[in-house]
Amino acid sequence: MQLTLYTDYSLRVLLYLGQKEAGESATISEIADFYGVSRNHLVKVVHHLATLGLLKTTRGKGGGVRLARDPATVTIGEVVRATEPHFHLVECFDPEAPTCSVLNDCRLKGVLGEATRAFFSVLDRYTLADMLQPSTSADELTIPLNRIRRG
Amino acid sequence: MQLTLYTDYSLRVLLYLGQKEAGESATISEIADFYGVSRNHLVKVVHHLATLGLLKTTRGKGGGVRLARDPATVTIGEVVRATEPHFHLVECFDPEAPTCSVLNDCRLKGVLGEATRAFFSVLDRYTLADMLQPSTSADELTIPLNRIRRG
Repeated sequence: MQLTLYTDYSLRVLLYLGQKEAGESATISEIADFYGVSRNHLVKVVHHLATLGLLKTTRGKGGGVRLARDPATVTIGEVVRATEPHFHLVECFDPEAPTCSVLNDCRLKGVLGEATRAFFSVLDRYTLADMLQPSTSADELTIPLNRIRRG
Repeated sequence: MQLTLYTDYSLRVLLYLGQKEAGESATISEIADFYGVSRNHLVKVVHHLATLGLLKTTRGKGGGVRLARDPATVTIGEVVRATEPHFHLVECFDPEAPTCSVLNDCRLKGVLGEATRAFFSVLDRYTLADMLQPSTSADELTIPLNRIRRG
């Protein structure tokens, strides 16, 4: 279970810019160097985030990219919804590949949909600004994988 | 955002066998034909589900595969946990690819972990048997994608 690298990079760009002073820009090369990732990948990501109204870009010398909105108003859920290509958790979600149409009464799709809504209900509660503030309940937020495995 | 095809096929095998009469077997070829998927893929899936104690296999003429447990005792969460290779939603979850170690105070990993726990808390409430019973609240279970997109 994973999100795309595209979403991963989108969140990283937004978080990097979110920790700057308000209105301060960075270059794409600076962000790529910081994370040790391909500049070419980030060019696409930045362009998309700009079309979504999340970033402002300025060309020329001294130009760069900066957040277009207050990070306290941008939820993680909003970003992930906009950057993930689809939410077809299993094939039966995909209208173009319905090889499982025989089990018409199967409730799996509905239950996976309910689980995905629960996933986003958490992401909708947190903003970019929240990600960059020291946690007040750090213990709760640092052992997710163990808890997932144990059920 | 998606689960692996391996999890998809695992759930399909279990659901196919779950709709049989108790103790009734099917061949792997029968299940592969039903879903129109590769028999070779299902061989691996069936072997794994048998090692997990979810299926029993019988060799020879008249042999086949059947559920090893009452479908009312097998939760969807249990199956997905056992068949997904990992829950590294973004790269910072992966201890072998920690290219984002610089933003040490970033809370994203913790929040995605909390969202993943919410996802599984739904899947843990439903069993294989629930998937095969006609829904009593069908409306609630058939419009998940729209709701996800709208937020």
